[in-house]
Amino acid sequence: MHEFKYKDNYLYCEDINLYDLACKFKTPLYVYSYKTLIDHYEKLKDAFKELNPLICYSVKANSNLSILKALVEKGAGLDIVSGGELYRALVCGCNPKKIVYASVGKSEEEIEEAIKREILFFNVESLPELENINNISKRFKKTTNVALRINPDIEPKTHKFITTGKLTNKFGIDFNTALDILKTKRFTNVKISGLHIHIGSQITESLPYVSAIKKILKFIKRLEKEGINLEYLNIGGGLGIVYNRETPQTAEDFAKKILPLLKPTKLKIILEPGRFIVGNAGVLIVKVLYIKKTPLKNFVIVDGGMNDLIRPALYGAYHKIVPLIKKTKDTIVADIVGPICESADFFAKNRRIELVKEGDYLAILGAGAYGFSMSSNYNSRKRPAEVMVKNNKIYLIRKRETLKDLIRNEILI
Amino acid sequence: MHEFKYKDNYLYCEDINLYDLACKFKTPLYVYSYKTLIDHYEKLKDAFKELNPLICYSVKANSNLSILKALVEKGAGLDIVSGGELYRALVCGCNPKKIVYASVGKSEEEIEEAIKREILFFNVESLPELENINNISKRFKKTTNVALRINPDIEPKTHKFITTGKLTNKFGIDFNTALDILKTKRFTNVKISGLHIHIGSQITESLPYVSAIKKILKFIKRLEKEGINLEYLNIGGGLGIVYNRETPQTAEDFAKKILPLLKPTKLKIILEPGRFIVGNAGVLIVKVLYIKKTPLKNFVIVDGGMNDLIRPALYGAYHKIVPLIKKTKDTIVADIVGPICESADFFAKNRRIELVKEGDYLAILGAGAYGFSMSSNYNSRKRPAEVMVKNNKIYLIRKRETLKDLIRNEILI
Repeated sequence: MHEFKYKDNYLYCEDINLYDLACKFKTPLYVYSYKTLIDHYEKLKDAFKELNPLICYSVKANSNLSILKALVEKGAGLDIVSGGELYRALVCGCNPKKIVYASVGKSEEEIEEAIKREILFFNVESLPELENINNISKRFKKTTNVALRINPDIEPKTHKFITTGKLTNKFGIDFNTALDILKTKRFTNVKISGLHIHIGSQITESLPYVSAIKKILKFIKRLEKEGINLEYLNIGGGLGIVYNRETPQTAEDFAKKILPLLKPTKLKIILEPGRFIVGNAGVLIVKVLYIKKTPLKNFVIVDGGMNDLIRPALYGAYHKIVPLIKKTKDTIVADIVGPICESADFFAKNRRIELVKEGDYLAILGAGAYGFSMSSNYNSRKRPAEVMVKNNKIYLIRKRETLKDLIRNEILI
Repeated sequence: MHEFKYKDNYLYCEDINLYDLACKFKTPLYVYSYKTLIDHYEKLKDAFKELNPLICYSVKANSNLSILKALVEKGAGLDIVSGGELYRALVCGCNPKKIVYASVGKSEEEIEEAIKREILFFNVESLPELENINNISKRFKKTTNVALRINPDIEPKTHKFITTGKLTNKFGIDFNTALDILKTKRFTNVKISGLHIHIGSQITESLPYVSAIKKILKFIKRLEKEGINLEYLNIGGGLGIVYNRETPQTAEDFAKKILPLLKPTKLKIILEPGRFIVGNAGVLIVKVLYIKKTPLKNFVIVDGGMNDLIRPALYGAYHKIVPLIKKTKDTIVADIVGPICESADFFAKNRRIELVKEGDYLAILGAGAYGFSMSSNYNSRKRPAEVMVKNNKIYLIRKRETLKDLIRNEILI
């Protein structure tokens, strides 16, 4: 469900006509619906309300400060993966006690800063990282809370690039190593207060979650027998959304499968949704520059490129593409491509879409997550502006880059 | 050939010890050798000297202003693909009459600006683009020089994402359409002064070039019979380099195959090398954060990520990875990965490298082209600094981004 719908053949975001936004702010342009964003957050919160979990929004999905603030104001915590994301979390006013920090490669400076800010805990991904956190904490004369990220060796049935819970992935700690860590007394300056799992992204069914949670609960029981009691269980994120014809579980379906497993434990539950909350809350609007007909193919060439949205090139991702104004029932089969000088620069291949002409606008749907956050300046292109629609008002939440921004920090010798 | 070599077990860039640079500027860090850059340019120039071609460096490969200026000072022109690259070309002092502009998606504003600046010519990629350029020129009361980019339908034997001269690609114009365009008199405000081909990137053998050039020369003969005489032939770029065990043709080998074809024509020749000039002139230095041993694999976790260098994730590209200080003959087989929270974030898989430990530095070789120019802020990571070594002196040519840079242009609502 989302708030991008046609009214009288014009595509709207909530009560705002997207055509007006495209004309006003130019293209390429990201537009987000505040209502969709908050709806998704509330749906997950409601579905799990019996457990009253801490929902830590995954900042990497879309790290715009106004997106973060909107969720933080509703009570969300934040799941961060870098010092840069910690900075964003603090700028947008997030309580550090609602911040959890995962990443296989936390640097010394990043760990120091997070310890100073007294975040809720680190999700620790390896033994040497734990040693590092322990040593830094000792230097600061502090005891730092951590959760061990367990790699449950689960196949989540998603793209190989966003699979994170198999033993061949770089993420997390296997059960045996985790057990050794939990039993040792040598980490004097960390308190292991929980476990964490995160098996991947864009997972559309509950079975991989159920399997992973069952495995981890069995492990927790074993720990209890050994006298090791934990406070938190962080079950990660990765809930899939509809890009094309997927039929992902709803928050309610998901909760129905998971709640019976989690309720018997006394653990405080943490969730880390990203895409589920923001994925369908954003679109990328582009303008048709040229319709190019060649002997073998049609190309709809638009003014957005892989630098603005890399998911089709990197993951072979599908995004629905629709016109801002429905004008005809005629269709065309075409590759929808950007201006960038390589063949990876496409949004869709051999796609049947409404017949468009030069100057028309298209909306690339489901662009809220891993859209702007992965954008680059490749081909010296200015990164797009971002707009949020909130309570029927229009807010520019990121200005379009300028030519000067492109060369900022460069020193001509 | 490049200027990154060991002396007494330390890796040097020209006469500068890279370990000293890593300590001084921190990591991840791009380092470029001025000598390597210029050597590659001069080699190509020498190999083709009989034809005295205009060598237009392909800005998209590495668009740092100091790289551009170094080449422009040696007489190079520039091959640009966007308004942003035009801006860079002008800032670094390039004569507009040495600028050629390709891209399937040139916007109205971009075309206007390039016409105003009086660049050498546009490489025109489609009939509607030509109409657009003609109309804008008419409005400006100018006659604009263009070359038609021909799609010669050649298989260049490279990665599908960087193949650009097949009829299923979005690039260029087929021969028949080109002939119609060249014969018509309806474009009153453009002068078609040349033809352009560019069949792809990282092409290691001469055969695809020879085939493409033969096809285009045959077409040019046909045009001459029809009384259509051209001034320029732009044979594009795409020359491959050594990343692993490739044995690409040298500039001399390439010239030997191509010169006999081109000499009989009276056409002024343009070349558009990018990777060939800058690819092996740059390395990315990263620091080892953690050595993670898991039941199935070893992971060397470094402080650079796919946001800094996306080629392995996007193209499955191979980059040699070597230590800045050779300390041992012992080796380890490991995945060399970054801190980013997805499995796409790797530099090498199952790679045997020298045994390293935490705190050691590694150089990722061949990172000069499509390295920084494709970098992003994914995971809210600051983009790296860039340093150039020139005549034994060290120049910071791009400062490392700061936390403030990450949120620049954002407006918190």
